Amino acid sequence: MSNTRAGTVYGIGVGPGDPDLITLKAYRILQKVPVVAWPAPLEGESLARRIAAPHLPDGLTEIPIRMPMVEARFPAEQIYDEAAVEISRHVQEGRDVAVLCEGDPFFYGSFMYLFARLVDTHRVEVVPGVSSLMASAAMTGAPLASRNDSLAVLPGPLPEEDIVARLKGTDAAVFIKVGRHFQKIRRVLEEAGMADDALYIQHATMDQQQVLPLQEADGDAVPYFSMILAHRRGEAWRKPADPAEAAQ
Amino acid sequence: MSNTRAGTVYGIGVGPGDPDLITLKAYRILQKVPVVAWPAPLEGESLARRIAAPHLPDGLTEIPIRMPMVEARFPAEQIYDEAAVEISRHVQEGRDVAVLCEGDPFFYGSFMYLFARLVDTHRVEVVPGVSSLMASAAMTGAPLASRNDSLAVLPGPLPEEDIVARLKGTDAAVFIKVGRHFQKIRRVLEEAGMADDALYIQHATMDQQQVLPLQEADGDAVPYFSMILAHRRGEAWRKPADPAEAAQ
Repeated sequence: MSNTRAGTVYGIGVGPGDPDLITLKAYRILQKVPVVAWPAPLEGESLARRIAAPHLPDGLTEIPIRMPMVEARFPAEQIYDEAAVEISRHVQEGRDVAVLCEGDPFFYGSFMYLFARLVDTHRVEVVPGVSSLMASAAMTGAPLASRNDSLAVLPGPLPEEDIVARLKGTDAAVFIKVGRHFQKIRRVLEEAGMADDALYIQHATMDQQQVLPLQEADGDAVPYFSMILAHRRGEAWRKPADPAEAAQ
Repeated sequence: MSNTRAGTVYGIGVGPGDPDLITLKAYRILQKVPVVAWPAPLEGESLARRIAAPHLPDGLTEIPIRMPMVEARFPAEQIYDEAAVEISRHVQEGRDVAVLCEGDPFFYGSFMYLFARLVDTHRVEVVPGVSSLMASAAMTGAPLASRNDSLAVLPGPLPEEDIVARLKGTDAAVFIKVGRHFQKIRRVLEEAGMADDALYIQHATMDQQQVLPLQEADGDAVPYFSMILAHRRGEAWRKPADPAEAAQ
């Protein structure tokens, strides 16, 4: 874009839920931008906006990006197109725009669809955030991975046979987007002998956080924002094996 | 521990390198603790301390945890034992201790060895941080994973046949601890047809950051703190497929 007055689009990771888990960098950007955009369901609250709310100055221009909860590609494309046009208009008139993203913008986030529409023609800066992956491990008190563990991140909606295949041989696994896929994931972990040490967590770092052994979780009331952490080696992480790497 | 005066051990993720990528929570803890501990090589600088340095008040008591770069379990066990004793002494006398960790404490971090020694008998709080995994994706401008991608995190020191097996069928892969394993990883990615779109990054978010296509990186000068990001689907992330999930 040749317009030298043009502003910047910031993709801001606001962290997993606790407002204090936002970065200093994100916090400072939010103090100076005149416009914020945020994703939300068609009706109801935006989680990203709720997390950032204590840090938002008064008088901001806000751009809600509301997405109907139906499974069709067309309305999503159109909604992102329209949001990109609205963001672009502000940026071309010299106003920076911060797009709020739960967790980290590039880890299974919807920001990438705006990024794809804007990056070729605008200044776009991605500010990484604390992911719910790391936050969940911190809250469960169980390291996610250590030493030379292989770690698989597996979305719950994957077909059962794909989960079985990806799990084979991996040392550690984290299931995201668990929701209504809970029973399928538990079944696969049981068959892999990994269910009894696995941990379930919902709403990590938020007021309504719950951490339970997988086998004690109520599989019929699992929110979308929940995770299952599993490790093949149990508590092997308690012993350092490779000091040369541990010292780094 | 029955001592009610006892302090708390904080495992603090200081983020990937840019000091502004520390969280507000970590920043505030560092303003009030009287003691900080940090890992370092036997000689030379602690990366975790360097990242946190702008945020450390004067007059702190500091506990260096220096680890020789040799591959033997005994000295590492002893060094962590001694560090845990020293940290415990401060905590029992009522002083909170912050242990600085690069990136996130529970994502391949050495903090877990101290955590294992302290958690059963002390108050220990883990403060998650921005991982170099997410920071690297932000800096390369390529989303790590989207929609229902499976993602494999693979340490470079893994045997080649294990890497080949873990890579099979996964949608995206991130190699950590690349260092002297660069040529092996590139070879495996070439055989999997994933090398040409893969990206190499070293020292993400730090002054000396470098981002290159994998095939342009100099494989003979690769630091330990480097990553390779690979994705089987190229730029498929540009299109939203599942608005119901994107809206969450």
